[in-house]
Amino acid sequence: MTTPYTHSPLITELKPEIEAIVAAADAAAIEYASTEPRTRASALVAVADALDDHADELVALAQEETRLAEGRLRGELNRTAVQLRLFSDVIVDGAYLDVRIDRFDEDFAIGVRPELRMTRLPVGPIINFAASNFPFAFSVAGGDTAAALAAGCPVILKAHSGHPKLSVRTGEIVTAALEDSGMPHGVFAVITGQENGTAVLKDPRIQAGSFTGSEHVGRLLADIAAARPQPIPFFGELGSTNPVFVTQAAIDTRVDDLVSGLVGAVAGSAGQLCTKPGFVFLPEGHGLEEKIREAVAASNSQLGEQRLLNPSIARGYTGRREEVISAPGVHVIVDGQARVDDDQQVWTTPTIVGVSLADLREHRDAILAEVFGPFTVLVEVPTGENPATVVNELFTGSLTATLQTADDEATEELHALVVALTQVAGRVLYGGWPTGVAVTHAMVHGGPWPATTNNSSTSVGTAAINRFLRAVTYQSLPDALLPAPVRDSNPWNIPQRISEAGESRTWGQKVNSHVYSSKG
Amino acid sequence: MTTPYTHSPLITELKPEIEAIVAAADAAAIEYASTEPRTRASALVAVADALDDHADELVALAQEETRLAEGRLRGELNRTAVQLRLFSDVIVDGAYLDVRIDRFDEDFAIGVRPELRMTRLPVGPIINFAASNFPFAFSVAGGDTAAALAAGCPVILKAHSGHPKLSVRTGEIVTAALEDSGMPHGVFAVITGQENGTAVLKDPRIQAGSFTGSEHVGRLLADIAAARPQPIPFFGELGSTNPVFVTQAAIDTRVDDLVSGLVGAVAGSAGQLCTKPGFVFLPEGHGLEEKIREAVAASNSQLGEQRLLNPSIARGYTGRREEVISAPGVHVIVDGQARVDDDQQVWTTPTIVGVSLADLREHRDAILAEVFGPFTVLVEVPTGENPATVVNELFTGSLTATLQTADDEATEELHALVVALTQVAGRVLYGGWPTGVAVTHAMVHGGPWPATTNNSSTSVGTAAINRFLRAVTYQSLPDALLPAPVRDSNPWNIPQRISEAGESRTWGQKVNSHVYSSKG
Repeated sequence: MTTPYTHSPLITELKPEIEAIVAAADAAAIEYASTEPRTRASALVAVADALDDHADELVALAQEETRLAEGRLRGELNRTAVQLRLFSDVIVDGAYLDVRIDRFDEDFAIGVRPELRMTRLPVGPIINFAASNFPFAFSVAGGDTAAALAAGCPVILKAHSGHPKLSVRTGEIVTAALEDSGMPHGVFAVITGQENGTAVLKDPRIQAGSFTGSEHVGRLLADIAAARPQPIPFFGELGSTNPVFVTQAAIDTRVDDLVSGLVGAVAGSAGQLCTKPGFVFLPEGHGLEEKIREAVAASNSQLGEQRLLNPSIARGYTGRREEVISAPGVHVIVDGQARVDDDQQVWTTPTIVGVSLADLREHRDAILAEVFGPFTVLVEVPTGENPATVVNELFTGSLTATLQTADDEATEELHALVVALTQVAGRVLYGGWPTGVAVTHAMVHGGPWPATTNNSSTSVGTAAINRFLRAVTYQSLPDALLPAPVRDSNPWNIPQRISEAGESRTWGQKVNSHVYSSKG
Repeated sequence: MTTPYTHSPLITELKPEIEAIVAAADAAAIEYASTEPRTRASALVAVADALDDHADELVALAQEETRLAEGRLRGELNRTAVQLRLFSDVIVDGAYLDVRIDRFDEDFAIGVRPELRMTRLPVGPIINFAASNFPFAFSVAGGDTAAALAAGCPVILKAHSGHPKLSVRTGEIVTAALEDSGMPHGVFAVITGQENGTAVLKDPRIQAGSFTGSEHVGRLLADIAAARPQPIPFFGELGSTNPVFVTQAAIDTRVDDLVSGLVGAVAGSAGQLCTKPGFVFLPEGHGLEEKIREAVAASNSQLGEQRLLNPSIARGYTGRREEVISAPGVHVIVDGQARVDDDQQVWTTPTIVGVSLADLREHRDAILAEVFGPFTVLVEVPTGENPATVVNELFTGSLTATLQTADDEATEELHALVVALTQVAGRVLYGGWPTGVAVTHAMVHGGPWPATTNNSSTSVGTAAINRFLRAVTYQSLPDALLPAPVRDSNPWNIPQRISEAGESRTWGQKVNSHVYSSKG
């Protein structure tokens, strides 16, 4: 039912070169959506191959613009290519289409059921805002781009200003590989400039947005997407505090491993990772300060000063670092460097501070948010505090949450803590550190606000494709008018879930007939 | 990375009785989420049985408050109970959890892969705003409630003011059945009043919203959900125009069936269905006016005057009806009744108008929106117009779109039309009328804006459960700390997608090895 509704128009006129890009994406949408699985999958593999072929050139550009280490950048580029190959498999498998076929059923429980065939379609052209801290894996040809291209959506990539030359060059390579693979013109383009990015996000031809970056910018963009005359989904991956809980048994049984792992997770990539552990909860009187100072010194002698990515991140880091250090009750364990050079770039070594749980509670507004850079807060938890209660009280949403225990430690208290952490995080780890994010089928890189603007999916792993699809049902169409995935002949050889006639008479009976395995 | 972000607080203080309901839902969330599949499924079946047991009482109350016909209401109540039983099967099957397990992999393509186990969790307490026009199936125990309860989310149901006594009574029956089944107190409650509804939607303990109703109200609520300090997903099913395209061959081969079907779809439930065909595109000079007048007369003699649901819908109907009839080029084919009585209720018979495609184009602002009630517009399309182009030009989003053809007619033009309709509709029909919506696995009741506020799912059918879930991954946890669905012992006997070690070395190769069936 409708009362005609006029929402204030927010559409911004596009500059001619941007209009051409959006028009080309829109024009390409149906042809690209209709590509056969093998054809689209081949195009993604061609992009992966092209990235590999240009690795030396791309890594050199990335080093110049980001100052990230060569090894890290080579690994990241490999990850980006592997990600595209993984999605090529997802396309050919076809399970992601969630095809369901209900047979015509004269005896259906609520009247005759027509034949119904469901599949999923790409939503249409999308805009993807690239991140600063992963110039490959969350940038031009990164995870959001791979997932959207795999879904069948044209992608307009808003480059991050932190690596402009690399973005343009990567865009050229991706576009050429797609066009050489026979994909329609307009399927992929790189744009630059914040104004252009927000103008495209407002354009009625754009059907979804994705983003990796700060909570502040992510919220602004999510609000724009929601306020459009036609609101669209916006998948932002934002800030994260990544709490870590350490048991006394972990300290008692593997203290050196624990300390070196922590320092490595805080120092690596100058702490500029969304999954860097930001708050480490330790038993009161843990006595690790000296070992931590030694580990940081060893790390510094190996890594040296690390430059932060750009002056904007540098300002954010020095400001938040100062805010936390100045909060009542916070004491400095390792007073790392944050040296500003003549170009307003900041050169760092890790800073580690400590605070009691009581002071964290009292001054949470100042302390309890992300510090993006090589910084972490050790929180001392008195005996008798229930860590699950601490989680419920302090945290709302985080990409990750980690337990550091003795080997195979699994107490009642830890069980309750896992349940509590599951409420606030997209990934719960036992041992290990959250900074590595595998690209695979079972990965979730997401979580409740403010980890993401939209909690329904992930931005890493194959489930990321779900963000760029919508379902449609065909009712009683003859075979000649049906798309391939829902035809009985199943020409793409993909999974189809079939409901035969008569089944509805048994609905509600599984609850009785089903017997669980006794192993549970 | 984070810049601390302060969004303007929008939280409204709740009245004490509403606060108690929200607090109880929040307190019940984890316990309810942890119920075993059979236990939660049994509770849904118990609700279905309780509704059946109270059918006479509930249907009588619904008749008194809505004036819908007894047969229609009995069918709707049956549908509501069947829906709950279907979801009980979904819970026990467990495929909806999308469980994925990646084995530890030393040889992984981007470095050692830890063991990863993904499942899906209920998002937490939700609020569901009930509809006026389906006092059972889209109301207290309706589709959104069933899907959310099945997912494991506590539900606060905002009753529609059009059937208050029925809502309270249904709520008592649902709550009692859930509590008798051992579900925790607070899992379900009915509230009334728009202010209470919006206050609950703003409450930080609420994690999602659902709604069936007008575009105007749906947009207001979606905007509230998006503007919260923590934005949440909002699934509104709003207005729909449900275009129908009729070929000349359909008129030539089955005109009587066509006309009686159309009049039945417009007259049934006084046209107060989201899927009522609102625009019927016919070849110019179709000559059906006289047959349509005869069919409406026959329908009127059978159904008599039908009262609209309530004065608010009545005002909307008479206003929009007048607006369309007054638009230039619109001529009245059947001048149905819209009589206002002393209680501001409106009594109707179907009104059918005609307009040329040229006039519809010129006056689309006045004509091209839903008229909620027994009203439809016949659009005359000149020879040579491509219907696919007409769809692209006129429509943005609709729950349904229908082709009326000769038997098995499948021309190139129809194929292009199906592709165009698929872009704007959640369900595409061939023959039949869109007013019936089967509750089943392959149904999509959704579509692009303004059919819904969120295009990613459906509000009818088993895929509706996806709206109330989020994914989480467990990394390297010992068995004792893992939840049942991701354990290797698989105590719930549900589908688990396993990725073995070593597989990543073959990613990107399916594109070559996979051979399609020649049947495609």
